[in-house]
Amino acid sequence: MDSLPIPPVARDRLLFTPGPLTTSLSVKQAMLHDAGSWHHEFNAVVQWIRERLLAIAGVSRDTGWECVLLQGSGTFGVEAVFATCVPPAGEVVVLANGAYGERAAQMLAQARINHRVLRTPEDLPAQPAALEAALVANPAITHVFAVHCETTSGILNPIADLGRVARAYGKSFIVDAMSSFGGMPLDLEASGADHLVSSANKCLEGVPGFCFVLCRREKLLASAGWARSLSLDLLAQLKGFERNGQFRFTPPTHALLAFAQALRELEQEGGVPARAARYRRNHDTLLDGMRALGLLPYLNPAFQSHIITAFPFPPAPGFAFDTFYRDLCDRGFIIYPGKLTRVDTFRIGTIGRLFPTDIEQLVHAVSRVLPTLDRRAKTREAHGA
Amino acid sequence: MDSLPIPPVARDRLLFTPGPLTTSLSVKQAMLHDAGSWHHEFNAVVQWIRERLLAIAGVSRDTGWECVLLQGSGTFGVEAVFATCVPPAGEVVVLANGAYGERAAQMLAQARINHRVLRTPEDLPAQPAALEAALVANPAITHVFAVHCETTSGILNPIADLGRVARAYGKSFIVDAMSSFGGMPLDLEASGADHLVSSANKCLEGVPGFCFVLCRREKLLASAGWARSLSLDLLAQLKGFERNGQFRFTPPTHALLAFAQALRELEQEGGVPARAARYRRNHDTLLDGMRALGLLPYLNPAFQSHIITAFPFPPAPGFAFDTFYRDLCDRGFIIYPGKLTRVDTFRIGTIGRLFPTDIEQLVHAVSRVLPTLDRRAKTREAHGA
Repeated sequence: MDSLPIPPVARDRLLFTPGPLTTSLSVKQAMLHDAGSWHHEFNAVVQWIRERLLAIAGVSRDTGWECVLLQGSGTFGVEAVFATCVPPAGEVVVLANGAYGERAAQMLAQARINHRVLRTPEDLPAQPAALEAALVANPAITHVFAVHCETTSGILNPIADLGRVARAYGKSFIVDAMSSFGGMPLDLEASGADHLVSSANKCLEGVPGFCFVLCRREKLLASAGWARSLSLDLLAQLKGFERNGQFRFTPPTHALLAFAQALRELEQEGGVPARAARYRRNHDTLLDGMRALGLLPYLNPAFQSHIITAFPFPPAPGFAFDTFYRDLCDRGFIIYPGKLTRVDTFRIGTIGRLFPTDIEQLVHAVSRVLPTLDRRAKTREAHGA
Repeated sequence: MDSLPIPPVARDRLLFTPGPLTTSLSVKQAMLHDAGSWHHEFNAVVQWIRERLLAIAGVSRDTGWECVLLQGSGTFGVEAVFATCVPPAGEVVVLANGAYGERAAQMLAQARINHRVLRTPEDLPAQPAALEAALVANPAITHVFAVHCETTSGILNPIADLGRVARAYGKSFIVDAMSSFGGMPLDLEASGADHLVSSANKCLEGVPGFCFVLCRREKLLASAGWARSLSLDLLAQLKGFERNGQFRFTPPTHALLAFAQALRELEQEGGVPARAARYRRNHDTLLDGMRALGLLPYLNPAFQSHIITAFPFPPAPGFAFDTFYRDLCDRGFIIYPGKLTRVDTFRIGTIGRLFPTDIEQLVHAVSRVLPTLDRRAKTREAHGA
C-alpha cells in the first residue's frame, strides 16, 4: 500500500480559522466510543443536545421552537431550509456582502427556487432600508435570507434590524448564523428569525459532521409537501426525532458525542456571555498586536466581528501569502486565506479553544516571519531578481 | 444545566448492527487531532483516501474512474447521484425488495425525477429478466438503480447480472453498495455499475460522517448543468477536489482521519478478501449457534449475505423484542430491530470490528436470555395474566 504522504507532526497546530477549529482534548476524547445510533442511550444524548441548543438561543419547545439536527456541513443546513420551507411559488431575497450570501444565491439557482440578490459592497453591512425597498417593490417575495457574521470579511450584518423589516412585511426570515452562534449573545425571539442555521464545529467548539436549524415550529409544519429533497427534508427530520428519537438516516454518532461534551464545556466556561468575552479578548489582543506590527484590519471597526478578521496583504515587497502561511505553519500556527473579491487579504480566526495568550504567540510568530519576508525580498533585489 | 440522562457505562457495548459499527480503538484514536480543512497535509489525506477507495474496487483514475467523497450519511450519496446525474427528462427504474429500494423511490419522488419501481418480494432477489422486460417496455428509462446487499433482510441482489442487462440496453447503472462495499470482493468494472455508493461506517470500519461515490468519469462529466442541489452536486464536488484538493464545504475532518486509519487496518488485515473471510466466519458462527438454539434465519441461504441476518421472532409465547433487546444490552450486546413489512424479525449484523469469538459470546447471551423469556411467560400464565 502506498503510505500516507504525511510528515510526522509532534503535536497539532493551532487553527486560527473559521472552522474546523482547535477543540479541547476532552471534546475529542468523547469520540473514543462507538454508540448505537438506534440505542435509547444515544437517542437521549441527541434529545439533550436539541434542547440545549434551544436554551442557548433563549427559546424552547414550549415557546414554539424546534431544533433539527442534520448530517453534513452548515451549507447543507442552509440548503435544507430553502429546500423544505420555500413554497413552490415562493421567492427568496438574498442579502449578500460576501461569499456566503453568494453561495445561498447559487444553491437557490441550482434548486430552481425563485430568488433575487440584494448586494452591498463587501466592506458594508446589509442595509435594512434597501431590504424594505425591495420588499415594497416585489410583493412576491416570501423569504428573506441574511448572513449574521459574513466570514468572507468578518463583517456583522444587523440581523435584528433586518428581522424587524422582514416581520413588518410578513416575510419569513432565514439567518445563516454559522460562524456566530454561541460566540455572541443572541436573543432568537428578538432577532426576528424564523429559521437560524449553525454548525457543530464553530463557536460551540464541537467537531464537524452535522449542522442544526432552530425553527419556529409553525413555519416548519406549514411546509408539508414542499420538500425538494429527501436527505435535506427538515420537516421529515423533525418528525423522525418526534417518532422515535432518532435521525432518519445514519447520524455522525462520534461527532454528536463530542458535541454533547462541547456543550458541557460551554456551560463550564460560563455560557455564551463568557465565551463571547473570551473571543472578544482574543480579537482585541490580535488587533493590538497586529497594529503594533503595522498590520491594520480590512474592515471599519464598527462593522467588525470578534469571530474572524481580514487583513490586507502588507505592502512589504517580499510578501507572498504562500510563504507567509508556510512560515507560520512551521511555527505551529495555521491561518486562513482571504476570500474577498477586490482586495488581497488573509484572515485570522479568533474562535475555538484559543486564548489571548495563544493570540500573543501567533502575533509574535507573525513578527518573526514578516522581517524574514522583507529580508528575502532584499536578498532577491540585491541579486537583481 | 440539566445533566445528560446517561447512566455510567463501564465499557462500550458491541454493536451487531448494519452500522454505525464497533470500530477499533486505533481508528477512534485517529480522531484525537484537529486538522485544518484547508491545509495541504489534510488535503493529502483526502487525496490518498480517494485513491485507495478506487484501488479497493479494482479500478483507478487511469481506467476512467473517480472517487467523490460527500458529507452526510450514505443516503446523501445515493440522492447526490440522482440529483446530479439524471438528466431533466431522464427516468430511473428502481429495483426494490426492501426499505432501501423504497427509500430510493421516495427520494426520486421528492426530487421530482421520473421513475418507476420494479418490486420483488422481500425474500427474493431482484430478477434480471424482469429488468430486461421493463427496459424493453419503457425505452424512456435512462438509469437503473439496485441495492447490492438489502439490509432490510440481508439479501444479496445479483448486481453483475443486473449490470449486464443495463449495459446491454445502454442504461446507466447505479448501485447502492452501502453495507457490502469492502465486506465482499467486488470487481467494479465487471459489475456493470457506473456509480457505486457506499459509506465510511460500514465494512471499511470507519466512523460515520461521510459517504463516497465511485463513478465512471465520463458519466459524471456528462451531467454538467443538471444538478438539482448545490450541497449534493457530485460534479461540483469532484471539480472542487481537482481544483485545490479540498471539499467545497467543511468536511468531517475527524471522521476522515479515522477513515485513513481504518483503510490502513483493512490493508493490515489482508485487504477485502481477508475481511470478507472474517465476516463469513462471523456469519457462519452466528448461524450455527442460533440454529442450535432453534432460531433459523428468515432467508433462503442461497440469497443470504454474510453482512446481516434477519431472524423471525421465536414462537416462544413470552417473546417480546423490547425485552429481548434490553436483556442482551444488559449483557453488553446491541442487536438491531427488524424492518421487514410482513414478518416480525430482529437482525444481527456480523460486520465491524467483531470476531467469531464475539459472535459465540452473543449466541451464549441469547441462550441465557431466551429461557428467561420463557420463564417470564410461564410466570405470567401461572398468575393468569
